[in-house]
Amino acid sequence: MTNTYKRVYIKDTGTVAGIYEGNGPLKKYFDKVYSRDFYFGKNSFEKAEIKVQKEAIEILLSKVGMEISDIDLLIGGDLLNQITVSSYTARDFDIPFFGIYNACATSGEGIIIGANFIESKSINNCIVATSSHNMGAEKQFRNPTEYGTPKPETATFTATGGASCLLTSEKTDIRIDSTTVGKVIDKGVTDVNHMGAVMAPAAADVIYRHLTNTKRSIKDYDLILTGDLGKFGKEILINYMKKEYKMDISSIYNDCGTMLFDTTKQPVLAGGSGPVCSALVNFSYVFEMLKKKKYKRVLIVPTGALFSPTLVFQKESIPAIAHAVSLEVL
Amino acid sequence: MTNTYKRVYIKDTGTVAGIYEGNGPLKKYFDKVYSRDFYFGKNSFEKAEIKVQKEAIEILLSKVGMEISDIDLLIGGDLLNQITVSSYTARDFDIPFFGIYNACATSGEGIIIGANFIESKSINNCIVATSSHNMGAEKQFRNPTEYGTPKPETATFTATGGASCLLTSEKTDIRIDSTTVGKVIDKGVTDVNHMGAVMAPAAADVIYRHLTNTKRSIKDYDLILTGDLGKFGKEILINYMKKEYKMDISSIYNDCGTMLFDTTKQPVLAGGSGPVCSALVNFSYVFEMLKKKKYKRVLIVPTGALFSPTLVFQKESIPAIAHAVSLEVL
Repeated sequence: MTNTYKRVYIKDTGTVAGIYEGNGPLKKYFDKVYSRDFYFGKNSFEKAEIKVQKEAIEILLSKVGMEISDIDLLIGGDLLNQITVSSYTARDFDIPFFGIYNACATSGEGIIIGANFIESKSINNCIVATSSHNMGAEKQFRNPTEYGTPKPETATFTATGGASCLLTSEKTDIRIDSTTVGKVIDKGVTDVNHMGAVMAPAAADVIYRHLTNTKRSIKDYDLILTGDLGKFGKEILINYMKKEYKMDISSIYNDCGTMLFDTTKQPVLAGGSGPVCSALVNFSYVFEMLKKKKYKRVLIVPTGALFSPTLVFQKESIPAIAHAVSLEVL
Repeated sequence: MTNTYKRVYIKDTGTVAGIYEGNGPLKKYFDKVYSRDFYFGKNSFEKAEIKVQKEAIEILLSKVGMEISDIDLLIGGDLLNQITVSSYTARDFDIPFFGIYNACATSGEGIIIGANFIESKSINNCIVATSSHNMGAEKQFRNPTEYGTPKPETATFTATGGASCLLTSEKTDIRIDSTTVGKVIDKGVTDVNHMGAVMAPAAADVIYRHLTNTKRSIKDYDLILTGDLGKFGKEILINYMKKEYKMDISSIYNDCGTMLFDTTKQPVLAGGSGPVCSALVNFSYVFEMLKKKKYKRVLIVPTGALFSPTLVFQKESIPAIAHAVSLEVL
C-alpha cells in the first residue's frame, strides 16, 4: 500500500529532549532540553512524559503562531499501557483525537494517517505527536529491575522526550510525496534484548516495497533513515537487504537509534529506541537539513517491535512493523 | 471534525462471541459462538483473544468470498497492553496494518480512518477489526482479583469476542454517509467502576457536534446507539443531553452495553463493555437490521474510557472519547 500525495506539507515541528538526548550529538537541533532529572518537575515518570508530549505540541504551536483551535486533528501514540500519555495529553487540547499504536513506528503511522485525511480534504491540517520516557518504559516493561543486572550489548536505550509535527495542505518547502504502510512481520526472534534483529526484516520489506511501488531506486534518495534498529540492527538490515532483495543501501543509509546518541561514549548500548527516538531525529535534525536543502529527498522509516511482556512470557516470538514516509524539498 | 463520504460502503461483517454474549439476547445474530469456556482451545486468555479476532476476520473473508490478499489494509485495536492481540492477529495476515487505540471506542476510530483512506482513493477496501476478552481484561486491569470482592452495580462486564467489518468503495446497500471524530473529555470522574459516568459527556459532545455539523436533528435518525455506557450511563447521557444541549434523544436512543446482555438476568452488572461490545452489536444486529431496511439511518457512537491503572493509582481522573459514524441504507 503505497500512496502519493499532491497537497500534504510539513509546516514545522516541536521537539523536547531529556538528559541523555540533550547530551547527544543532536543537542543543538532540539527546541528544548531537560538537563536536571527525569521528572521535569512532576512527581511521576508518567506525568513527566505527559508534560513533554504536551510541551512538544505547545512549542510547535508557538513556532507557527497558531492556537490549538486552528488545528483540525491531533494524532498521538506512545509506549505506555493504554497509550495513556497521549490520551492525557489530548484531554488538555479541545480538538478531535485519534490514539494510535505501532510501538516505535508510531510517528510513521501517524504521519500516514494524517496525510491521508489532508489529501482527502477532510481536514486542512493536523498535529502528529509522540513521546517516550526511559524510566517510564523501564518501570513498565522490566519491573522489577534488579540492581546489577547487566543488559547485553544488543539492547537499546529508550529515549526520553516529546516530538510533534504539523502537517498541512498549505504549501511549504517540504512536502510528503509518498508513503508505504508496513506489514506485521515476525521472523521468529524471541530476544527482547535484540530489537534490531526483530525489526530489520520489517524495515527491509517496507523499504523494498516503497522503492518498487514508486519505481525509484536508492539513487533517488539522499538518505534512507530507519528508526530505531541500533548499531547491530543497522548491520543486519544492510546485509538482509543485500541477501533478500539484492539491494545495497549502505551508501545512503543511517539509523535514528545510532544518531540520537553517541554509542561510543554514552551508556546507551546499541543506541536509542522508543517512539520518540526516530521522531526526535526526524523532526529536529532531518527537518533542519531539509529546510536548509542539504537533502533533496529523504525516506524515513520508523520501526516498531509489537510485543508485550505478557506474550513474551508466553514464549511467543516478536512481530515488528515499519512504515515508510518520503519527504521531498520543493 | 465532521466529514461526509461519497464512496464508502460496508460490504459485510464477521462476529465471534463468547459464552455470556452467546447466551444474551443477540445470540442469533453472531456468526460464531463459543459456549464451553474462555480458552477456545488455547492455553491463555491472550491467545484465546487473538484466536477470536483472527476468526472474525476469516469468517468475514469467507462470507464475502475474498482472500486476505484482496484486502488493501487492516486496521485493528484492542484493550490488552501494547494492543498485542491486534498485532499478533495481523502477523498472520500479509497485508498493511495500522494499530489503533481508543479503548472501547476503537471500532469507531478504525471505521473513520478506513473510510478516509477509501474516500481519498488511497485504497479500495479495508478491514476494521477489534476484540476483547473478559478474563484477559480482568487479569490485566484488576489483578490480583481477590475472592469475594463484590463490584458495585455501576461496573460493567467486559465482553468476549472478536468482530470485524469490511469497508469498500464498491457500492452496497449500506453506506457510511458521515462521521464525527471525538475529543478527549475529562469531567473529573475518578471511579473506575462507573465508566458510564466517565464516558457519557464525551458521547454527548460528539452526538451534539455531529447533528449540528450535519444540520440534522434526531428526527433524521431511526436509532442513536452509544456503546458502551451501560444502564446507568445511558440515563446519565439522556439527562446530560437534555441539560447541556436542550436535546431529548430518549425516543430513538439505546446503548450497546445494555443490548449485548440481558442486564436483568445475566450477571453483568450495568451491562457490557470492552472494544468488542459495541462492535458485536453494531456488526451483527444493527448491520442485519440495516440490511433488512428496518432502519434507514443509524448513528453509532462507540465510547471509550482512556485510563490506565497506573494513572488511576496516581489519582488522576479518567478522560473519555466517543466517535460518531452515520450509516445509511440506500
